[in-house]
Amino acid sequence: MLGVCYYPEQWPAAMWAEDARRMREVGISFVRVAEFAWSRLEPRPGELRFEWLDEVIAILGAAGLRVVLGTPTATPPKWLADRSPEVLMVDAQGRRRRHGGRRHTDLSSPVFWEESRRIVALMAERYGRDPHVAGWQVDNEFGCHDSAVCYSPAAEAGFRLWLERRYGTVEALNAAWGTVFWSMEYGSFAEVDAPHLVVADAAPAHLLDFQRYSSDRIAAYGQMQADTIRAASRDQFVTTNFMGMFFELDPFDAMRAYDFASWDSYPLGHTDRLTLPGDENQVFARTGHPDVPGFSNDFYRAAGRGRFWIMEQQPGPVNWAEHNPAPLPGMVRLWTWQALAQGAEVVSYFRWRQVPYAQEQMHAALNRPDDRLDRGGHEAAQVARELAALPLDPPARAPVALVVDLETEWITRFLPQSREFTYKSILLSWYTELRGLGLDVDVLRPGDDLSGYALTVVPTLGTVSEAALASFRDAGGVVLYGPRTGAKTADFAIPPNLPPGRLQDLIPLKVARVETLRPEMPVAVAGTVAGAGGLWREFIESDLEPLARFDDGEGAFYAAGRHHYLAACPDPTLLAAVMAYVVGEAGLESARLPRGLRLQRRGSLTFALNFGPDAVEAPAPAGAAFVLGGRRVAPQDVAAWRC
Amino acid sequence: MLGVCYYPEQWPAAMWAEDARRMREVGISFVRVAEFAWSRLEPRPGELRFEWLDEVIAILGAAGLRVVLGTPTATPPKWLADRSPEVLMVDAQGRRRRHGGRRHTDLSSPVFWEESRRIVALMAERYGRDPHVAGWQVDNEFGCHDSAVCYSPAAEAGFRLWLERRYGTVEALNAAWGTVFWSMEYGSFAEVDAPHLVVADAAPAHLLDFQRYSSDRIAAYGQMQADTIRAASRDQFVTTNFMGMFFELDPFDAMRAYDFASWDSYPLGHTDRLTLPGDENQVFARTGHPDVPGFSNDFYRAAGRGRFWIMEQQPGPVNWAEHNPAPLPGMVRLWTWQALAQGAEVVSYFRWRQVPYAQEQMHAALNRPDDRLDRGGHEAAQVARELAALPLDPPARAPVALVVDLETEWITRFLPQSREFTYKSILLSWYTELRGLGLDVDVLRPGDDLSGYALTVVPTLGTVSEAALASFRDAGGVVLYGPRTGAKTADFAIPPNLPPGRLQDLIPLKVARVETLRPEMPVAVAGTVAGAGGLWREFIESDLEPLARFDDGEGAFYAAGRHHYLAACPDPTLLAAVMAYVVGEAGLESARLPRGLRLQRRGSLTFALNFGPDAVEAPAPAGAAFVLGGRRVAPQDVAAWRC
Amino acid sequence: MLGVCYYPEQWPAAMWAEDARRMREVGISFVRVAEFAWSRLEPRPGELRFEWLDEVIAILGAAGLRVVLGTPTATPPKWLADRSPEVLMVDAQGRRRRHGGRRHTDLSSPVFWEESRRIVALMAERYGRDPHVAGWQVDNEFGCHDSAVCYSPAAEAGFRLWLERRYGTVEALNAAWGTVFWSMEYGSFAEVDAPHLVVADAAPAHLLDFQRYSSDRIAAYGQMQADTIRAASRDQFVTTNFMGMFFELDPFDAMRAYDFASWDSYPLGHTDRLTLPGDENQVFARTGHPDVPGFSNDFYRAAGRGRFWIMEQQPGPVNWAEHNPAPLPGMVRLWTWQALAQGAEVVSYFRWRQVPYAQEQMHAALNRPDDRLDRGGHEAAQVARELAALPLDPPARAPVALVVDLETEWITRFLPQSREFTYKSILLSWYTELRGLGLDVDVLRPGDDLSGYALTVVPTLGTVSEAALASFRDAGGVVLYGPRTGAKTADFAIPPNLPPGRLQDLIPLKVARVETLRPEMPVAVAGTVAGAGGLWREFIESDLEPLARFDDGEGAFYAAGRHHYLAACPDPTLLAAVMAYVVGEAGLESARLPRGLRLQRRGSLTFALNFGPDAVEAPAPAGAAFVLGGRRVAPQDVAAWRC
Ligand SMILES: [Zn+2]
Ligand SMILES: [Zn+2]
Ligand SMILES: [Zn+2]
Repeated sequence: MLGVCYYPEQWPAAMWAEDARRMREVGISFVRVAEFAWSRLEPRPGELRFEWLDEVIAILGAAGLRVVLGTPTATPPKWLADRSPEVLMVDAQGRRRRHGGRRHTDLSSPVFWEESRRIVALMAERYGRDPHVAGWQVDNEFGCHDSAVCYSPAAEAGFRLWLERRYGTVEALNAAWGTVFWSMEYGSFAEVDAPHLVVADAAPAHLLDFQRYSSDRIAAYGQMQADTIRAASRDQFVTTNFMGMFFELDPFDAMRAYDFASWDSYPLGHTDRLTLPGDENQVFARTGHPDVPGFSNDFYRAAGRGRFWIMEQQPGPVNWAEHNPAPLPGMVRLWTWQALAQGAEVVSYFRWRQVPYAQEQMHAALNRPDDRLDRGGHEAAQVARELAALPLDPPARAPVALVVDLETEWITRFLPQSREFTYKSILLSWYTELRGLGLDVDVLRPGDDLSGYALTVVPTLGTVSEAALASFRDAGGVVLYGPRTGAKTADFAIPPNLPPGRLQDLIPLKVARVETLRPEMPVAVAGTVAGAGGLWREFIESDLEPLARFDDGEGAFYAAGRHHYLAACPDPTLLAAVMAYVVGEAGLESARLPRGLRLQRRGSLTFALNFGPDAVEAPAPAGAAFVLGGRRVAPQDVAAWRC
Repeated sequence: MLGVCYYPEQWPAAMWAEDARRMREVGISFVRVAEFAWSRLEPRPGELRFEWLDEVIAILGAAGLRVVLGTPTATPPKWLADRSPEVLMVDAQGRRRRHGGRRHTDLSSPVFWEESRRIVALMAERYGRDPHVAGWQVDNEFGCHDSAVCYSPAAEAGFRLWLERRYGTVEALNAAWGTVFWSMEYGSFAEVDAPHLVVADAAPAHLLDFQRYSSDRIAAYGQMQADTIRAASRDQFVTTNFMGMFFELDPFDAMRAYDFASWDSYPLGHTDRLTLPGDENQVFARTGHPDVPGFSNDFYRAAGRGRFWIMEQQPGPVNWAEHNPAPLPGMVRLWTWQALAQGAEVVSYFRWRQVPYAQEQMHAALNRPDDRLDRGGHEAAQVARELAALPLDPPARAPVALVVDLETEWITRFLPQSREFTYKSILLSWYTELRGLGLDVDVLRPGDDLSGYALTVVPTLGTVSEAALASFRDAGGVVLYGPRTGAKTADFAIPPNLPPGRLQDLIPLKVARVETLRPEMPVAVAGTVAGAGGLWREFIESDLEPLARFDDGEGAFYAAGRHHYLAACPDPTLLAAVMAYVVGEAGLESARLPRGLRLQRRGSLTFALNFGPDAVEAPAPAGAAFVLGGRRVAPQDVAAWRC
Repeated sequence: MLGVCYYPEQWPAAMWAEDARRMREVGISFVRVAEFAWSRLEPRPGELRFEWLDEVIAILGAAGLRVVLGTPTATPPKWLADRSPEVLMVDAQGRRRRHGGRRHTDLSSPVFWEESRRIVALMAERYGRDPHVAGWQVDNEFGCHDSAVCYSPAAEAGFRLWLERRYGTVEALNAAWGTVFWSMEYGSFAEVDAPHLVVADAAPAHLLDFQRYSSDRIAAYGQMQADTIRAASRDQFVTTNFMGMFFELDPFDAMRAYDFASWDSYPLGHTDRLTLPGDENQVFARTGHPDVPGFSNDFYRAAGRGRFWIMEQQPGPVNWAEHNPAPLPGMVRLWTWQALAQGAEVVSYFRWRQVPYAQEQMHAALNRPDDRLDRGGHEAAQVARELAALPLDPPARAPVALVVDLETEWITRFLPQSREFTYKSILLSWYTELRGLGLDVDVLRPGDDLSGYALTVVPTLGTVSEAALASFRDAGGVVLYGPRTGAKTADFAIPPNLPPGRLQDLIPLKVARVETLRPEMPVAVAGTVAGAGGLWREFIESDLEPLARFDDGEGAFYAAGRHHYLAACPDPTLLAAVMAYVVGEAGLESARLPRGLRLQRRGSLTFALNFGPDAVEAPAPAGAAFVLGGRRVAPQDVAAWRC
């Protein structure tokens, strides 16, 4: 189903009814409102003005639309910042930040918690049983604008309590962080600071725990809002909208509070920000790279325990990237179908009408500022019509499991050892390789049950826990581990038996040393697979005969039974060779798709989504029954058939 | 006439008389003194030491030189900063800046105003009727070193008053800024902050108003000094020295206080900082790009209501760019003649003698530190001799009007939508295209009378006001508007009828959407004109048949009668084609000049100024009477003839 | 002899004895301990816990090892920072920095001095007569992590006292700094600030004096520790460990406190950070550029008055560069032999065993975290065996003197005039040119006795003092001066007779102007030498006939008797030609060595050290007696012969 984000407070009340009518006409079912409206709900402390929102909900409901209520805590009013400056965040430079944008709050501030609970409770009491209100979105895009981590006194206090709960004694903390190094030892939890303004580097475990605390804090804050809502509501869902490829918080943890996951999909802006190989930044400038939304759809489907929405879908050019191209005709529809094919329950467009003023005035919408339905609006309407005619099966398990872990991103960032070896880049490139072979992918966390997967891919994994080890041992098929897997203990130290740590139980090899090289220094690899690696390269000790070796004779690729280990960050050639090898070992059928084409099964349906510049033939079996489009798939078009 | 900047306080008094004699020998008429001398005029609070300046003025006057007195407020003494730290500026990071350089003051500080008024009044009372004092330069290079905008409590207080005067009610402010967006609403003017340390972005209208306030503040502060001077002086001019291509303040506004404009011309340093196309950074490294001083000459002639000085002219290598080449022999003379040809009344060199110590010790002067006349000094003397023999006509109106608007720079900067589409780059490239066709250019502001111009060029213009619309309607000739013209209302919002807003009255088209692309993604344009565009590209809705189209069929260049609209930021090919087209439509004769050659008419005189590496033939009519140089113009040389 | 850095506090006491035994087995003689152990020596204020260190020293001593005790002041404990926040440094942004890393202290803080004196005295009293303790390392890597300069109130107070001692009167300071410029004048020393947060630039002499103060402060602080140690010790040396190519402090000054110099050699990390010409960053990625450690060996041999140690030698990959390659097999041995050949008394590896936790967990050691001897350990053992069989002569004087001056680095940095002309780059490139000709080099300071040198090379020298002038006049051989030599007085001003100032007594020429050009604008030079220059280029006035001219006819290279002046920053071709010319003039035999080969004499021994990728023939005379390796020197190998 389709939805839309709507800000009635930004338009004359006289427009509301007509807006609602036209939403229905486009085929919208859900309307998100109120997420930034605190100053209109409570213009002065305690002066509540909910009547306008009552009216909005009534109008939308009367039109047959279902309302998603946003809690407005991402944008507290100025009077709160003035009355209680401690609600404002303190950044890594030690500066108290100021009102005038959004997300400027300190989620560790007791005052901000209390104010948040109050406004949410007021909303929940008023609308928690409103039949037009389908559910709630808590806050908005937690962590956006570098707001995930805060260095305020309140954050420091919260961090100390968190540490006390985690470690029990300061001796345990000292041991875990290795504070004997550089005399960093603490005599009590009260001595521990937030890790900023440190000379040289802070201890990696200190940084990691502060990130864990910050992520937990966001989760707890969301939980508090969800609890507040649920205490006063009935039959309404609670979700929050996460962001794509955003790793400052762990949405799997945060999801304990929510009924399903939502995320905000802006493919072009993110594609502009990535450094894609070859000419892909140009080829995909107006379509987005297919795996930018693709990965997040799979990721948040997993985080949402199988259920996710696109809460905000790019409807045209955005305003926040360095370059903001216009999506090609058809892209809004294609993105929508891609999300639906990957299991989205609702795709909700951001926003109903382009607002002519303020920060996002250059951000397109379904309607132009002059209230004409824009191209994105027409495409949404087309999807609505198509969707009405095409019942979707529930998503099924994919053949490939991709193991993803937020802590690995943090570990890689806090102890990089190489400028270029980032978690995001290895994750996206390995995912893309699988997708380019036409394979569906399920995202799993370390420790999840892998028994149903023919192939499990672990691009890299900071720590191999007991649970992760057990799941790898019990994996149903072939497993591929990338470099730096098992490189750290849970306390961010090198395992006593060296990396890959516990994984040595499954594949007997040790990483004796690591080297990281400039991008212009690839080290050739040859053997069963060939190519090169070097951004990250490990020297392996093992009795295993390597399947491929670096050109200095050191082993590069190993297998022990179903378990495969790649001791380098591969170049595209090596990555393709390794992936083809393990896909073959796993007995999976695959074929390299034309550039920009993606396939996705949803139950008995197979979708072919063409992000590339050329028309392609859908790889459908002869006689397949096309239920959307046909065998020839034009650029920016989609086809689907039943098998 | 020629002038020079002189700092007698930096040299033994025994040298003053000989300096004065040699100035006359070189041909200097005006000598600027005292601009940074506060600590010598008032070494301790209230201890005035004006005697040395009395003597300097007497010596200079006795030698036949006329004095320009600088007020020393750009460099207040240490005792003031120590006694009243609130006179120091606060930067965007919230840091109170410190004494030890210059321009470190807060122009919103009441204490600094009072102290400024006091020292200026003391000087004006003493010298306001001194016959040797021709006039005054207020302060020095307002805004230099990122000092135009200050975030102090005093600035915040001043901003609030300014807003109250502008909007009357906070409701009007909320409406104008669109603060309903993101709950930014204010309950009173006292709640409004300076827009810094905000998370995400501040509202564009908030940024714009703060820039307007800051620019107004500089204007008011200069007005206060000018008023103070005029209250005590007679028959003395008041000016201030602006900077080239510096857009943090609006000199047209500031000029209400002054009798004429002055600006400081350092072509090489600015050329080094620009990214010029092709090999121009190398070709023009030692000459400067001809249009760097050229544009500012035209700009400040306009700001000065036809009257301007070069208050500081580069005399040799400077010290502040990343690379500081030596001007080629002849360049000091050529820059001087260029300014005179464009209407400068006085060209004053910075400085008389290179000072061997402190921050600018590597900055050349007319004399070397060892008091030998340097190359620049010899060239100045040559100009003085030539000038004596060549009576200059008053400048006449140019055939082309270039509409320039400071707010457009602010708008473009505060809401860029593209990393590369900057006001400075589009302004300079369009100006250069006109100059490369040999055309003289007058700079005008939106709303100025355009009836006398065969061609009006508007590279881009943030807001088309009623007055601007009227002047475009009444323009005497062809008008060309560039992309993003009319994109905003005065409140920094998208016009209700979409861009180009009011301009739709003159050319019926609407900008339905905008896309901005990486520089490596040009979109080809073909038709009446051809080339490519893409850094900024608009999708047009119109019943007009476009004169040229993008390669996806969208219209790129439109005309409605005399009014022409280009819907892209053009590449050099498209820019040249469009400009040639409108120049032709305007019936102007033009021919592409050899690289680096520039022409300029002043009354009956035509100057040919050769910034290029090769000798060229002056495009003078057969039989033209050369009054300077001859038909063959060597590199770094100038010729002039009467027609 | 060999040494190792050991952190017993980071390992169970049960491992100490076996560690000691294995150190002896590897051939280690010296063991540095305790440098970061303050929190273990004094976990709470006044609670001393020295027993463990007693035991460590006893165990090491019993095993026949000699102990070097580090004072732990680079890492004060958290309780000190909490009790006395004024011990924490304040950075240039005005931010008080925080505990959690290292070097976060303010060396101007009286409290920190007192605490440092206390802990050092306690250690010295306890171990000052311990026969197992050979000596002391004061603190660790002064200035690392941008800690050399501090902007605290205490630093400001210390700076004022320092200025008062230097200048006597504030009038003298005002004159020296040229504060009349920009009204920067001070009425008293109490008015002078540390030069930060200034708008525009601070006065260069202000910056220079603050750097001098900061360097002096480090020297004084080390002296205080050395004095404290010596007051309680007998027959123990005192040193400190400096860093390679680190110019924030002047080790020659600091060395007054120490018995010999030590430095920490990490060739690969530094090579990664340099921008080397051509493909050298790749060719030398896993060997380091030979002259990176080579220069510092020569430099610290000079600073140490002929005596130096490598206190920390890279043993494998490090953790702190952007890319961290693994040294090729043999490199740890080769670096060790290089240092020994250049006169090192001891080479001490950092560290005994890789610590699996905290900031440096990715930094290799002689042993892996799993306690297996790593490749570096094996190579160290090989050196120990070779060294036992090879008695080393004392180092002898080199034929070439390279004049190096820390203040020149500061002058060049504080008044750059060119982005690319840095002291570090000119110093390293000129040194490399000499080394590539197979010449040994002694580093000297300006004013040192040059009478014994056939060739003296002065790449550039900010100030030519009377003493320096005298030493150049009395130099025994040919002298070559590079550009910007003598450009400033001791007060950071242009000399009254223009650059090269006093040097005009030896070579009659004047620098009339300077230009600095973009790297892509070389100016060709031809004549006795040929090539190009331009990053820094001087226009010379002289009656001398130049030996080579720029292509515009200006003189580029001059000689007056034995004195040669190069008026440009040369490109590699010109540098090679000039160096070959003066080497020839000096009558030195030389031949260009194969890439990566370096020669070094030590008494009757000549070493050939091969950093290059190919085997080479050692340039030994026929019949030379090889005492290490043989005539064919493999890559990463070393040979030595006696003549
Ligand atoms: Zn959003
Ligand atoms: Zn100036
Ligand atoms: Zn170290």
